[in-house]
Amino acid sequence: MINQLINKIKATKAPIVVGLDPMLSYVPEFLKTKVFQEMGESLEAAGEIIFQFNKEIVDNCYDLIPAVKPQIAMYEQFGVPGMEAFAKTVAYCKEKGLVVIGDVKRGDIGSTSEAYAVGHLGQVQVGSKSFTPFGEDFATVNPYLGSDGINPFLSVCKEEKKGIFILVKTSNPSSGEFQDRLIDGRPLYEIVGEKVAQWGEEVMGEEYSYVGAVVGATYPEMGKALRKIMPKTYILVPGYGAQGGKGKDLVHFFNEDGLGAIINSSRGIIAAYKQEAYQAYGEEHFGEAARAAVIDMVTDIKGALESR
Amino acid sequence: MINQLINKIKATKAPIVVGLDPMLSYVPEFLKTKVFQEMGESLEAAGEIIFQFNKEIVDNCYDLIPAVKPQIAMYEQFGVPGMEAFAKTVAYCKEKGLVVIGDVKRGDIGSTSEAYAVGHLGQVQVGSKSFTPFGEDFATVNPYLGSDGINPFLSVCKEEKKGIFILVKTSNPSSGEFQDRLIDGRPLYEIVGEKVAQWGEEVMGEEYSYVGAVVGATYPEMGKALRKIMPKTYILVPGYGAQGGKGKDLVHFFNEDGLGAIINSSRGIIAAYKQEAYQAYGEEHFGEAARAAVIDMVTDIKGALESR
Repeated sequence: MINQLINKIKATKAPIVVGLDPMLSYVPEFLKTKVFQEMGESLEAAGEIIFQFNKEIVDNCYDLIPAVKPQIAMYEQFGVPGMEAFAKTVAYCKEKGLVVIGDVKRGDIGSTSEAYAVGHLGQVQVGSKSFTPFGEDFATVNPYLGSDGINPFLSVCKEEKKGIFILVKTSNPSSGEFQDRLIDGRPLYEIVGEKVAQWGEEVMGEEYSYVGAVVGATYPEMGKALRKIMPKTYILVPGYGAQGGKGKDLVHFFNEDGLGAIINSSRGIIAAYKQEAYQAYGEEHFGEAARAAVIDMVTDIKGALESR
Repeated sequence: MINQLINKIKATKAPIVVGLDPMLSYVPEFLKTKVFQEMGESLEAAGEIIFQFNKEIVDNCYDLIPAVKPQIAMYEQFGVPGMEAFAKTVAYCKEKGLVVIGDVKRGDIGSTSEAYAVGHLGQVQVGSKSFTPFGEDFATVNPYLGSDGINPFLSVCKEEKKGIFILVKTSNPSSGEFQDRLIDGRPLYEIVGEKVAQWGEEVMGEEYSYVGAVVGATYPEMGKALRKIMPKTYILVPGYGAQGGKGKDLVHFFNEDGLGAIINSSRGIIAAYKQEAYQAYGEEHFGEAARAAVIDMVTDIKGALESR
C-alpha cells in the first residue's frame, strides 16, 4: 500500500492528504437543515450529515489528491451511527480510488492490538467466513506501549500489504511534555523515531517502509533531524494551515527526491468556504471552495520544494 | 463517579474489576452455534454472540463486583455491529448497577480529544438536542500527547462527574522500551505519574481524584514507587491472573486504608470454565464458573491485604 500511495503521489504531483474531520460546526447550515428535516435531530442524522459533507468534498477533490485521512474521533463522538458514517466514508473514498489513512491513534498490547489491526486494516474471522470491518489502507498508531503494541500491526500489515503511521512528534504545543524529555542526552521522540525505523525494516516496500511516522508541521527543525534518523520512513505531517505550518517550513520533511512526506490539512480544506480567501464560493459551493484550497496548498508546497 | 466507584468497592468488599474482553475463542461452542443458526455467520452474529456471552457473565457476577471494564478493541474488530455490541454491553452493565470503565486507550489533541471525551463520557450536541453516545463512567487514556490530550477529558469529567485512568506503566513485557527510559535519572513512567497527580488535583472527589492511573500488576516494585508519587490517584491494575500477577504482588498498589487500587482480571474470569480449576462447571455453565473465579480472586486479594 505504501507503493500505491507513492505512485498516487507521483501521479497527482500532490504530496498532500485531506483530513476528513467533519465537525458539525464546519457543515453549512443548508445541509444540516435539509437532513434534520428528513430525519429529525438524532445521532443518525449527524452521521448522515457528515457523510454527505464528506461526499461533496471528495467528489470535488478526488482527482487532485492521493489520499484522505478521516479522523475517527469526529465520527465516534456520534456513537454507533457515527461509526457507521466512518465506515461509509472509508468505503466511498476507496470507491473513488483514494488511499485511506484511518487517523485512529490506537495502541494496546498483544491480542488487543491485534484486534485493532484486524478491525481497521485486516479481516476478521467469524465462524468459517472472514469480513473486512472498516477497511482503511493505513492507520495511525500510538507507540507508548512499545513493541508489544506495534508487532501485531506489523503482522497484519505484512499479510494485507497495508501500513501504519506511528506517532513520533505530534503537532500540538504540549507535545514536548513527554516527547522532548532527554534520555541519554537525546529527546524521547528521537528514540521513538529510531525504533520506528527499526520496526520499518521488517516490512519494506519498494523505496519506503510500510511503517511511517507522524511528525507535526509545527516543529520543522525536529522534522529535519527525524528525516535523517528515519530515511526509509514516510512522514505524515499534520499541522499545515490552521495549526500554523506553511510550505516553506516543510521542505526538510522531504527527501531529496521530493518524496518521503505527505502533508495533511483538515480544516483548511474542508472548511475553506469559511475563510476570507474562499468566501466568494458561498456555502452552497463548499466543495468547490475545498477544491480551490487544495490547488493553493499544492502550489504552496510545490513552490517551496522547487525553491529549496 | 470516583466516589461512587469507591462506595461500591466498600460495599462489595471487592477491589476488583472484571474485564469484558470477549474474544470469540472464549465463547462456548453451543452459544456460537445457536446464534449462527439464527443469524448466519456475519459481523452482526459476532456482535450478538459477544453481547449474550457478556450478559451471562454479568448476570452471574454483578452482585459481587463494583465494576466491569469492556476492552473496546474486542468489539471494534467486528466493525459497526461490534460497536453496537459495545454500546449494548455498556448499557446493560449500567442497568445492573455496575460502574463501567471503557478500556478505550484513546488520546489525541484539542477538539479531537474532546470528541473522544464527549463520545465516551459525555453528551454530544446534535442541533438542539443532546445525546449520550456510549455512556461509560470512566475511560482509559494514553498520555503520549501531553496536556493537550488530557485537558479536554478533564473538562468533560468535571462537567459529567466522570473519570479517566491514564496509562502510566503498562503490564506488557516491552512496556519498558520507552516507559522505563531515564530522564534526569528517573524513569519516564514516574514523570508521567507526577503529571497524572498534577492533572488529578484539578478534579478531586472526596478522597481520590477523578483522574486515575493504569499500572500493570506485573511490575509490583514500580507500583510501590508510583503509589507514593500519586497518593490521591486510584490505580487500575491490569495483568492479574492470566498475565502472571498474584494477590501478594499487589499489596503495594493499595494505600494503608485498603483503598487506592482496583485489580482487573479478564480472561481469568470470563474464560474460567476453560481452566482446570473450574472445568467441572462445564461450558454450559460458564457464567457460574466465572462467579467462582471472582470469589477466588477476591479471597486471594483480601488475604494478601490482611496478611501484609
